[in-house]
Amino acid sequence: MRADARDNRARILTAADEVFGQSPHASTDAVAKLAGVGIATVFRHFPTKTDLLEAVLTQRLERLRNQALTLAAGENAGRAFYTFFSQVVVESSAKLAIGDALTSAGIAAGEDARKAAAGLREAFGSLLSEAQRTGAVRGDAGLPEVYALLIGASRGATTRNVDPEVRNRMLGLVYAGLRPAA
Amino acid sequence: MRADARDNRARILTAADEVFGQSPHASTDAVAKLAGVGIATVFRHFPTKTDLLEAVLTQRLERLRNQALTLAAGENAGRAFYTFFSQVVVESSAKLAIGDALTSAGIAAGEDARKAAAGLREAFGSLLSEAQRTGAVRGDAGLPEVYALLIGASRGATTRNVDPEVRNRMLGLVYAGLRPAA
Repeated sequence: MRADARDNRARILTAADEVFGQSPHASTDAVAKLAGVGIATVFRHFPTKTDLLEAVLTQRLERLRNQALTLAAGENAGRAFYTFFSQVVVESSAKLAIGDALTSAGIAAGEDARKAAAGLREAFGSLLSEAQRTGAVRGDAGLPEVYALLIGASRGATTRNVDPEVRNRMLGLVYAGLRPAA
Repeated sequence: MRADARDNRARILTAADEVFGQSPHASTDAVAKLAGVGIATVFRHFPTKTDLLEAVLTQRLERLRNQALTLAAGENAGRAFYTFFSQVVVESSAKLAIGDALTSAGIAAGEDARKAAAGLREAFGSLLSEAQRTGAVRGDAGLPEVYALLIGASRGATTRNVDPEVRNRMLGLVYAGLRPAA
């Protein structure tokens, strides 16, 4: 891909993330407008709206995966684990699509998004292990149940009428259950 | 309503709960067959499929509300609280519709279902208060966040690939957070 084509692709993806984050039902036209490119350019890179939605989803999942990996290798994996957990839930709250991404990536989404979702789960597992090693998370909690809890908290936070304060108090209860018994 | 008409209505609702519990996309015809009544009888009681779905939803929410109220007035409200929490989550797992009912009742559903959802929340609040009074649930947990957690756990448990064992371990983490600090 030539440099200007790569540029356009990145701008379209950034715009699509913004536009579809507001509403997955938004038009591809709105994406083209925000990206400052013609609609034909969008369709050259992403033949269908589904292709574009999947690329946005994949990009988000990969970004979260990379972040989890960086945090797992960092200094304070214990604190980082809780920060990351909150961030995923807060992003879900602001942008329903992330939660849907997490829960449905394996069903409706294509190969790329599925791989990215599996990668995120694995990276989250590394972060969890590190946090457990430092004693910040109880050692008997397995990845499957902690991941189910992450998805559940994300879904709980996207429910209508859950204001940020309630969401944070809900997370406080979740974290109290994840910390080692005193 | 005459006794035989009431009878038919109840049978249709029971059949609809079963059929739509399997799939909300099932046909009204399948409901009539299971109920052993003609399709015309179904439409006489429920002019549209939406009416029928809402009646099923309302009935489920009311049943859960009554159960929560009974448990709140019972002997061991502490244990009952956790049993009820698990039951709602397990039912969500088996029948996606309950989870959707809880989260979307206020948006898409009509007046009846909305009232029933509000009634369930209130009854769950009574059960929570009683469980807190007995010391089984930490006293600083408010209804909004505990309810968000209930909805979240239900959604987390309906995710594909969450097997019953993982769901139970996830609930173990949730309950560890709800119990008073040692």
